[in-house]
Amino acid sequence: MALVVQKFGGSSVADAARIHRAAARAIRARQAGHRVIVVVSAMGDETDRLINLAFQITPRPSRRELDQLLSTGEQVSIALMAMAIHHAGVPAVSLTGGQIGLRTDRTYGRARILGVTQRGRIESLLSEGQVVIVAGFQGVDEELNVTTLGRGGSDTTAVALAAVLKADACEIYTDVDGVFTADPRIVPTARKLDRVVYEEILELAAQGAQVMHSRSIELAMNYNVVVHVRHSAREGEGTMIVQESPELEQTVVRGAALRRDLARVGLLGGPLGSAVAARAFAAIAEVGLIVDDIIQNTHGSDGTTNISFTIDAAEMSEARDVVQRLSRELGFRAVEIDQDVAKVSVVGIGMRSHAGVAARMFAALDRAGVLIENITTSEIVIGCIVRREQGELALRAVHEEFQLGAAPAGGR
Amino acid sequence: MALVVQKFGGSSVADAARIHRAAARAIRARQAGHRVIVVVSAMGDETDRLINLAFQITPRPSRRELDQLLSTGEQVSIALMAMAIHHAGVPAVSLTGGQIGLRTDRTYGRARILGVTQRGRIESLLSEGQVVIVAGFQGVDEELNVTTLGRGGSDTTAVALAAVLKADACEIYTDVDGVFTADPRIVPTARKLDRVVYEEILELAAQGAQVMHSRSIELAMNYNVVVHVRHSAREGEGTMIVQESPELEQTVVRGAALRRDLARVGLLGGPLGSAVAARAFAAIAEVGLIVDDIIQNTHGSDGTTNISFTIDAAEMSEARDVVQRLSRELGFRAVEIDQDVAKVSVVGIGMRSHAGVAARMFAALDRAGVLIENITTSEIVIGCIVRREQGELALRAVHEEFQLGAAPAGGR
Repeated sequence: MALVVQKFGGSSVADAARIHRAAARAIRARQAGHRVIVVVSAMGDETDRLINLAFQITPRPSRRELDQLLSTGEQVSIALMAMAIHHAGVPAVSLTGGQIGLRTDRTYGRARILGVTQRGRIESLLSEGQVVIVAGFQGVDEELNVTTLGRGGSDTTAVALAAVLKADACEIYTDVDGVFTADPRIVPTARKLDRVVYEEILELAAQGAQVMHSRSIELAMNYNVVVHVRHSAREGEGTMIVQESPELEQTVVRGAALRRDLARVGLLGGPLGSAVAARAFAAIAEVGLIVDDIIQNTHGSDGTTNISFTIDAAEMSEARDVVQRLSRELGFRAVEIDQDVAKVSVVGIGMRSHAGVAARMFAALDRAGVLIENITTSEIVIGCIVRREQGELALRAVHEEFQLGAAPAGGR
Repeated sequence: MALVVQKFGGSSVADAARIHRAAARAIRARQAGHRVIVVVSAMGDETDRLINLAFQITPRPSRRELDQLLSTGEQVSIALMAMAIHHAGVPAVSLTGGQIGLRTDRTYGRARILGVTQRGRIESLLSEGQVVIVAGFQGVDEELNVTTLGRGGSDTTAVALAAVLKADACEIYTDVDGVFTADPRIVPTARKLDRVVYEEILELAAQGAQVMHSRSIELAMNYNVVVHVRHSAREGEGTMIVQESPELEQTVVRGAALRRDLARVGLLGGPLGSAVAARAFAAIAEVGLIVDDIIQNTHGSDGTTNISFTIDAAEMSEARDVVQRLSRELGFRAVEIDQDVAKVSVVGIGMRSHAGVAARMFAALDRAGVLIENITTSEIVIGCIVRREQGELALRAVHEEFQLGAAPAGGR
């Protein structure tokens, strides 16, 4: 008798009909003889409604009270989900983060999970044959103050429960069929992947693929939880997110991704020496700017240092003043800001042992008429900064080059 | 430094503006140097919205899950109230029923309070100068399952906290100016009472005056909590609900009330003997029918028993079959149902020691042309069953007779 954790996101429980549909999934697993834990998010745009209520009261709600407020969204969902399962004659019980003792630190709004104290209660309810429905996204600190886990929080709850209870499967139900070789809205030939390795999905998420939040994937990787991404309304096998295996390594490039929303900052003509780069990025981190990639750190022939990096374009308006100030303080001659860049990346664990991937990528982009402005690489990613308007063209070109639309002969 | 409990009902926190207004009350008390606990209900019709969600899922939601669902209403209110108090620069912290350890039994939907385990936490927050905001209507059982207290539940929470923490005042903010000698919508000369005794308000509530639920008044009486009923939007002294005192006993009749919504049931021609009445009311209690008054139990000259009682008219359609069945089982000859009766009552602790109140009441009704169909009395109440269409006329007549609109010379 396997233990299955099923997580349903906000769009999968947005109304009564969808709650019944999600309930039917849980019931089917229960009737197949499994022990079933269901983790749910707040209904549809309930979280937005609650945030709006808070901002009607004050422009600066306290984080503690915001968490107290927002956690009600998931509590409504679990109660309704339990009712829907009861309606089908199957026993079920709903539990909040506090009721399962999902302990976190006190970082309201993005708390870290410390443990699950009521593991015994969950297990005893499961042995009674109950479907156990748990509120995602929320926990409590040691004084029972309500905390929330931040972006992707319900996925994190599901993975954490799967890890703690040593579940056989952790199914994430969402509104896509699984993880694709590229965004199908941009690349019509994009193919759903049956399997993908944790490190790959982490990089794909970082490079702009929106399937699960990196944090929950990291947790799954650390505790070796096999995550199964599936469509909540359609049948189909979805995508398994698994550990690296010799079989999976045969595929050199697993997927391609596009980040359209980047801005590039250049700090030009600074004093020579490695110390200046260290000081620059320390200062950038201190002001809370999140740098996507450091793309260049060059020493000019005139004895000066040039530093370039990318950040989220949405943060650029806020960042502009900070960057100007840093430039002056650190002795750079000029700041160059380009708000219209994108990054196309290919990701694959197989690329570690295969030379020539970068060369094939650059050649393909060149043939497609895409100008590569900068290159960034890591062990399993090669990324090219291009003009934003060439981003989609670039994505299609690399997807084609590595034949990602066709299942490769050796791997899957 | 006094400890004040302030309770705001749903209409007093129905939107952001009203929440700020209620917050201002709490802040004023805090700034006057008091320690302040605020108990709040769910916003306006939030409870109805949640019940509606449940019934979209299933016609028979489980009571446990309904409590899990409904308790979110008050949780939203406390978070918003805390934000409103913060907005004015005053420290405040919101706590759910679970967070203050308001322990109840497991009677979902109408749980009884067993105690408050986190009294120390409340007291330590108060000593820090925090306004402590508590979710009304909710508690938890020993396994931390969420329970709700049923009708008037937030008043009960406020009174219970005032009792446990030995508060100096328990202020119930509502949308009326206080307790009146009669319903001012029916009797324009009705006067607000400055003081009323627990027993009187209990009878007035039972006789149809809608100020506070009997349960919270009983709790206040048992723990001698002085309850202060006040208008949430208007200034004014409201009504104090207090212990009996010699001064208050000087007023013979404190108030008059009208219950318009009664039906009278007669079970006619049953077997003689007291046992039959006992059997009849035992059977009535068993099927869950709530009898308002037993108004007659007579032995006819033909050697039969007649039993009459009143019930809520709204329950009559459901009760009709039950009553017919009971009548057959117990050997009555016929059932007589009158769906159009009302009851006018006068209430006052002073009436215990004053003869002649009943006679004055009957004479006044007679002069007003009201036909008295039945009479029911208890130690501090005299009630007359009349035709429903004569109910308002009857109420005005007795209000006038006892000069309730003018403050009596001796008492208040």
